[in-house]
Amino acid sequence: MATAAERVAALRAQLSQAGLAACWVPTADPHLSEYLPEHWMARVWLTGFDGSAGGALITADFAGLWTDSRYWVQAEHQLQGSGVTLMRAGAPDVPDVLAWMRSHLPAGSRVAVDGRVLDCATAHRWHVAFPGARLELVLDRDPVGAIWSDRPALPAAPVFEHLPPHACRTRAGNLAAVRDAMRLHGATLHLLSSLDDIAWLLNLRGSDVNHNPVFLSHALVGFDQVRLYVAAGKVAAPLEARLALDGVVLRDYSALADDLAALSADTVLLVDPARVTAGTLAHASHARLVEAMNPSQLLKSIKTTAEAQNIREAMAQDGAALCEFFAWFEEAMEAGQSVSELDVDTHITAARARRPGFVSTSFATIAAFNANGAMPHYQATPKSFAQIHGDGLLLIDSGGQYLGGTTDITRVVPVGEPSEAQKTDFTTVLRGHIDLAMARFPVGTPSSVLDTLARMPLWQRGLDYGHGTGHGVGYFLNVHEGPQSISVRGHARPHQEMLAGMLTSNEPGLYRPGQWGIRIESLVLAVPDGHTEFDDFLAFETVTLCPIDTRCIVREQLTPGQLEWLNGYHARVRAGLLPLVTGTAQRWLMARTEPL
Amino acid sequence: MATAAERVAALRAQLSQAGLAACWVPTADPHLSEYLPEHWMARVWLTGFDGSAGGALITADFAGLWTDSRYWVQAEHQLQGSGVTLMRAGAPDVPDVLAWMRSHLPAGSRVAVDGRVLDCATAHRWHVAFPGARLELVLDRDPVGAIWSDRPALPAAPVFEHLPPHACRTRAGNLAAVRDAMRLHGATLHLLSSLDDIAWLLNLRGSDVNHNPVFLSHALVGFDQVRLYVAAGKVAAPLEARLALDGVVLRDYSALADDLAALSADTVLLVDPARVTAGTLAHASHARLVEAMNPSQLLKSIKTTAEAQNIREAMAQDGAALCEFFAWFEEAMEAGQSVSELDVDTHITAARARRPGFVSTSFATIAAFNANGAMPHYQATPKSFAQIHGDGLLLIDSGGQYLGGTTDITRVVPVGEPSEAQKTDFTTVLRGHIDLAMARFPVGTPSSVLDTLARMPLWQRGLDYGHGTGHGVGYFLNVHEGPQSISVRGHARPHQEMLAGMLTSNEPGLYRPGQWGIRIESLVLAVPDGHTEFDDFLAFETVTLCPIDTRCIVREQLTPGQLEWLNGYHARVRAGLLPLVTGTAQRWLMARTEPL
Repeated sequence: MATAAERVAALRAQLSQAGLAACWVPTADPHLSEYLPEHWMARVWLTGFDGSAGGALITADFAGLWTDSRYWVQAEHQLQGSGVTLMRAGAPDVPDVLAWMRSHLPAGSRVAVDGRVLDCATAHRWHVAFPGARLELVLDRDPVGAIWSDRPALPAAPVFEHLPPHACRTRAGNLAAVRDAMRLHGATLHLLSSLDDIAWLLNLRGSDVNHNPVFLSHALVGFDQVRLYVAAGKVAAPLEARLALDGVVLRDYSALADDLAALSADTVLLVDPARVTAGTLAHASHARLVEAMNPSQLLKSIKTTAEAQNIREAMAQDGAALCEFFAWFEEAMEAGQSVSELDVDTHITAARARRPGFVSTSFATIAAFNANGAMPHYQATPKSFAQIHGDGLLLIDSGGQYLGGTTDITRVVPVGEPSEAQKTDFTTVLRGHIDLAMARFPVGTPSSVLDTLARMPLWQRGLDYGHGTGHGVGYFLNVHEGPQSISVRGHARPHQEMLAGMLTSNEPGLYRPGQWGIRIESLVLAVPDGHTEFDDFLAFETVTLCPIDTRCIVREQLTPGQLEWLNGYHARVRAGLLPLVTGTAQRWLMARTEPL
Repeated sequence: MATAAERVAALRAQLSQAGLAACWVPTADPHLSEYLPEHWMARVWLTGFDGSAGGALITADFAGLWTDSRYWVQAEHQLQGSGVTLMRAGAPDVPDVLAWMRSHLPAGSRVAVDGRVLDCATAHRWHVAFPGARLELVLDRDPVGAIWSDRPALPAAPVFEHLPPHACRTRAGNLAAVRDAMRLHGATLHLLSSLDDIAWLLNLRGSDVNHNPVFLSHALVGFDQVRLYVAAGKVAAPLEARLALDGVVLRDYSALADDLAALSADTVLLVDPARVTAGTLAHASHARLVEAMNPSQLLKSIKTTAEAQNIREAMAQDGAALCEFFAWFEEAMEAGQSVSELDVDTHITAARARRPGFVSTSFATIAAFNANGAMPHYQATPKSFAQIHGDGLLLIDSGGQYLGGTTDITRVVPVGEPSEAQKTDFTTVLRGHIDLAMARFPVGTPSSVLDTLARMPLWQRGLDYGHGTGHGVGYFLNVHEGPQSISVRGHARPHQEMLAGMLTSNEPGLYRPGQWGIRIESLVLAVPDGHTEFDDFLAFETVTLCPIDTRCIVREQLTPGQLEWLNGYHARVRAGLLPLVTGTAQRWLMARTEPL
């Protein structure tokens, strides 16, 4: 079974044998993670399409892959010869998979989904809609798994402890805070499947997936005990003993199902339906459920004073690494060396790796020149990448995992001589970035409404961008976390209050298809900014330290206030990074932080 | 029963006789209207407190009135001697009424609420919470009605037709649009209790309550017929015949309950749970419900081109009336005449009444001098009002119902010599007002996120205001309508998309308790402002025409863009109003629209 066509054929045979009319293969794991272990990449294995989002539906006479507009070009290419039809999700004439099933599957059809990896919201929607269409949803089968003979094993990387001084909270303190929230909800037990929640709660980290320092596990938190479900051998004996001191006992990763099934009717189980799969939850059929956001989501989003200090230090190291990279890059370009987008990734990661506390990248580097930069999720690959030469803009979005914090930064630098149109676009994006950076607002302001500040300079010119402006960032944890989200589209989401200590990205952008892309991203920390008779106020401290290239700015398009912010920021960048760099990197820093 | 104490005592006897432990008396009518007919002012009759918001709970040994901070001073005063305790709703140590009942009422207590006037959200919350506290909710009793011997009759004002050229849509067209929406929801019947929805749908108006040109009714909209439930005699025979041509048949106001009870299980009834009471809905126990916003809410919020043109004409007449009023006011003040806040109301309403198309005020005029202006809901009364003299700021919030539109405007004018602090506050509020007025944004932007623009100048100074920035405004209908709401607090409400044709207020403010209050309010119409490769854009056209007093402005605190907007607005005001005023009003207009 070397080709997608063969795999789809095998799956059809499997479905027919099991009396199933169709099988939906989503992109997810039992932890609803952003990055999947290969073991859970069933859709990639089946169809050959390896974008990060999409789902496949296989029936006896149809095979379709639904994915959004970011991946249409890639999917079209990768699905060639597979017999799998690309379904352009979001296009006006393309039904979503539920609508497709309702209109194409005959009454009585049984549709299988591996419930272990199906999110509760989809499961609920289908459970509600299926009876009306006389369809049956089957969640306890894994037809792809049944034919996937060389399925990769689950990752088995060791679990390690996040220790002081980088860890600034104690396991006991975290547990006490979560248990306080459980009491407020009247819960007796709390189920966690989301890996960053578990890692944060127990001051543990791992390396089971790329970029996110987490490990595969579930947890059941009671008032006297925590059961941590993790594969045998991943937690060494000394760490197991230390965990035991805090009431954390280990159970095998696979034991969760039976433990949930054994819960009695007087268990009140706190679960976050957005962070547990339908298959996992199905096991807890006897317990009474209380649904709410995982308390750890909010707790970990609010960085402590000590964490904030470590984050500032990590940001300085990260900025110093970028100085070294950019100094090399400019020298290489001036010397006429051949530099590709892939070289950028190599050198930027190497510069970070030389810094104390560095652990790994926090996501795959985006280095995108000119038209490639117009694709917000562009990824150069050895098969397809650009050489950087001529005139234009190079966009670099990158970040690191440090023991004392997670970084995420985007800068755009000129190559040769950028055009006036490029400079005006850059300045427009910068104006939004600065207006958001300068905002002052009452504690608890919904983060969605702050997005207006970043977008208005673009909107006034009839421009916009299709992604959010700000996501939460973990503390040596996932580079994307909640609950806050600076996004006009997130306006109806719950738990949007911006609170002191939250670390969020500020990343407006502008993408001109086929021409160039711009994004200016720093991380901002919400800090107290005074109490008046009207309210308590917050401001943003831009904690990312790295020059914003003034060669791309049209000075006259900035207001005096914006210019003052920019020069003040560059003075802070210079002072913060100067002690950490030498030689050409230091000279580069001095030049790029000259006041405008 | 002349006193509140006697009425509460009589109610207690009534409760005891009926085996009821408590009775909750909310502020509402069966249509969940903003303004209640006296018939439904049970809480006012019972307690003597006549503020517009609040509810009373009476038990055998407790009587409490819950109301929010706007009314604490007034309620404290009016409840004196009644034996009714003021419960300061929203204060940190005051439980809400549900929490109070859970902790104070013994198990088995039966709590009565007149279900006819209880909103579905509260009913649902109490239905969910009561069993756990072993309380029983009784919705089919009206204990206050049973003792209220001289209860005022329901209003019986005649219904009239809204006719072209002021009515710009046909009844048939409105019905077709609502029926299209019913089909989308799979509904066979649609229940309406909200008076502005019914008035809009049928091109009918009335005068059963102050300020809103509506009439008491319910409606059941089917595909072939509309049943309009309205008291006998309110619709004259010729109008009844005209309605019949569009399939609208009259039923007595009281016949709705039986008609709902007679619905069969194959009826799919579209209802908006925010706009129907629990008691009304309880009658429809056999029908299948589909819950969604009333389609007419969105349809009527989007003004047609013809309506927009009529609105512009009504705004000009309204602005001309204000010119006459302000010219009189300034002359009177210069002549040293004694002018009170009540005189302002009298003269401003008289000036409007001279204008073509005027029908009534659109809400009770707020004329508030200095410290009175710091109370956003201040209302001068013959018992309590201020004379206007000395130095300071006069805030006037007023509006009119015209056949061709509804107006709502707030202006603040100087009296004597305002202080520098007052001018700086005025300028800060104006900056927010202008920034919102100048906004450009994609079609469908959630209206809540636009509020940031109006508040940021205040936030930067550590200031804020406790009300929303923008409410929808009807077309010769309610001065407050939905669904859009420019309010950071409204961020999680559904249906917040700003669409072309929506008419919304722009009214930032600032209130310094005991000192002064400022609010600058104009109505803005969302108008198409270009299509780009990124999106379709909207801008706001400020349709209210009336000078913003430049004597209160610190010119240097405005940006060049804000100053340009202000001067452009005043040029437009001058051009629009000049043909409609003469004499002193014309001279006043010229002086107050001089460029700054």
